[in-house]
Amino acid sequence: MARTIYYTATTLDGFLADEEDSLAWLFKQPIDDDGPHNYNDFIKDVGALVMGATTYQWLLDHSNSTGEAWGYTMPTWVMTHRTFEVPEGADVRFAADDVVRVHAELTEAAAGKDVWVVGGGDLAGQFAEAGLLDEMVVAIAPVTLGAGRPLLPRRLDLELLETDRNRAFITARYRVVGPLR
Amino acid sequence: MARTIYYTATTLDGFLADEEDSLAWLFKQPIDDDGPHNYNDFIKDVGALVMGATTYQWLLDHSNSTGEAWGYTMPTWVMTHRTFEVPEGADVRFAADDVVRVHAELTEAAAGKDVWVVGGGDLAGQFAEAGLLDEMVVAIAPVTLGAGRPLLPRRLDLELLETDRNRAFITARYRVVGPLR
Repeated sequence: MARTIYYTATTLDGFLADEEDSLAWLFKQPIDDDGPHNYNDFIKDVGALVMGATTYQWLLDHSNSTGEAWGYTMPTWVMTHRTFEVPEGADVRFAADDVVRVHAELTEAAAGKDVWVVGGGDLAGQFAEAGLLDEMVVAIAPVTLGAGRPLLPRRLDLELLETDRNRAFITARYRVVGPLR
Repeated sequence: MARTIYYTATTLDGFLADEEDSLAWLFKQPIDDDGPHNYNDFIKDVGALVMGATTYQWLLDHSNSTGEAWGYTMPTWVMTHRTFEVPEGADVRFAADDVVRVHAELTEAAAGKDVWVVGGGDLAGQFAEAGLLDEMVVAIAPVTLGAGRPLLPRRLDLELLETDRNRAFITARYRVVGPLR
């Protein structure tokens, strides 16, 4: 059964990035690419992606500054009201709103594979609020930022399905139960 | 060697309590009192406590509403400019500021045992900034709140010393390395 999964790294105090959208604190951390909850195993089962405008802009900027090509072969939805470029070879579609309709399109495009909610936190929150987010997989970096882009700005109950350690990170998989009771 | 330890529960998104200082989301979680990083093992090695005014007020209110007696036999410092009652049988001392001086008093009172920084997050941050916080032990509840009292509102590098699972919680012990590089 295909799942919709919010897979992300976070600081211990629940930030995806600092206020300048820097991930320098993340990239310096050692991680085992074959270890628990690693990206390669995760992405193998992903059939479609969805992300917010800030995340997409970050990926475009990162690609432009590093010269790295667009990293995803799967169809990718960007939830935005703005107009963006599309990198060569990327299958990127834009949607202004309505996560329910977009989720139906994502699920169809994924064709039995998982849907990855890349971020940011508010988009993941919109999916959770609509009851469309099945799981959350986090890699918790040994850092606090005190301010920045929030992991998941909603009141939610989760269920811890598994937790492990991958070098500097705590990793964990949660089921999204629903609004906090 | 006695350590100064910030021992606390937190949500996955880094909040100690919600905006109304409610811990209802915490108390409903199952925990094994003999499991990893349990309170009983921790408190055995604690010789002195320090907390902020909000935490102290919460404990007073909790004690008044439940009828439970003050739970600590060890000398306890409260960092505050306000005037408070002191529960019967409690050894509570008040200090307005200067965590360096208070830390020296705490260490002396602890007489070779650990010092527990109970909270809140800003007080723990003051100790960390002064280079006086050795470790942080967290129990991460399977909840997001999106807003509330922050875990540790500073930019800090930590080192993950150990992590485990205790029922609903991820538990972890970190060394406080210093300001985020």
